[in-house]
Amino acid sequence: MQSSRHVVVPPQSGRSMRVGRGDLIRIIDPKGQQVSDLWAFSTGEKLDWLSTSQTRDITERLFPKPGDHFYSAAGKVMLTLIEDGSPGPHDMLYPACDSALYERAGLPNHPNCRDNLMKALAAEGIDLPFAPDPVDLFQNSLPQPDGTLVVEASINPPGGYVTLRAEQDLLLVVTACSVDHHPTNGDACTEIEVEITPAA
Amino acid sequence: MQSSRHVVVPPQSGRSMRVGRGDLIRIIDPKGQQVSDLWAFSTGEKLDWLSTSQTRDITERLFPKPGDHFYSAAGKVMLTLIEDGSPGPHDMLYPACDSALYERAGLPNHPNCRDNLMKALAAEGIDLPFAPDPVDLFQNSLPQPDGTLVVEASINPPGGYVTLRAEQDLLLVVTACSVDHHPTNGDACTEIEVEITPAA
Repeated sequence: MQSSRHVVVPPQSGRSMRVGRGDLIRIIDPKGQQVSDLWAFSTGEKLDWLSTSQTRDITERLFPKPGDHFYSAAGKVMLTLIEDGSPGPHDMLYPACDSALYERAGLPNHPNCRDNLMKALAAEGIDLPFAPDPVDLFQNSLPQPDGTLVVEASINPPGGYVTLRAEQDLLLVVTACSVDHHPTNGDACTEIEVEITPAA
Repeated sequence: MQSSRHVVVPPQSGRSMRVGRGDLIRIIDPKGQQVSDLWAFSTGEKLDWLSTSQTRDITERLFPKPGDHFYSAAGKVMLTLIEDGSPGPHDMLYPACDSALYERAGLPNHPNCRDNLMKALAAEGIDLPFAPDPVDLFQNSLPQPDGTLVVEASINPPGGYVTLRAEQDLLLVVTACSVDHHPTNGDACTEIEVEITPAA
């Protein structure tokens, strides 16, 4: 039997990891209030990727709940949210933070999830001409009744986690979100941990 | 003075059109209840496109209102919603309808907005490896308070329209949505009309 793998994603960075169909992936926020952007790619004959808009359309929900699948741009099942060991919510409405966002805030050359995604993909030999929108785990940005959107500080406690099951062989990219000029990640950018348990 | 251009987008099809900075674009639903998917691309040195997720993030709103800009993947202003001559709403949460959606509904080889986008781009010599999410004009799919999403029949009356101003030179693609197995477009798929008035 294969043992579990443990990946640490340092603050304001990203890591890629290959997982096999049936593997369980636990994404843990050890210190709390830390948003983690999640992407999934199938790298077979035709590159495909987790699509938040397809997931919203097919699940008919803005935000995921246990038992829900995450779907790809081609409408394939990629992941299932098996367990939510956090109070949520998990955002599926925002793009990754990127250099343009920090430039608008007067912070040029700031670490950002988009660059961290692209670096992780480049290390895997994948040249993607755009950044798919991520699932923003632990991000507290529920829309208001009037349709306005505000990102509040995450309410995830230390050790809050989600567990996902891979429904295909996948390349995952996980970041620890870089926002440090806004309450998104609480008072500090901290690390994210990932535990991968092979299919029994 | 240049005269206005008039483009008819037949039912279940798409058309591309080049517009210049400052041009006014009126998208009209002559028969009512017809959803129209809208994409915008800048085709300069670096291809860029209207991004609904960047637009949600920067405007801090789920849905556009008059005066709001539509932003690109790179965070640039592409279009402004000048006038809303319709009751709305205009969706910014759904992907384009695609072959996978119709296959799930038991309707293989059905016309769809994604293919209509890709055909329109190919005719312009643009080979895009993915379909950006469109603005779904006149689509009645407001989220419910519990976060569930349902597409209801459009409430747009005959002649309902929106007027946009191009804030860059742009390639627009406009479709008349192909859904005919669900109430989205009322009882029938009908045409969309576009009037382009050059900048004064």
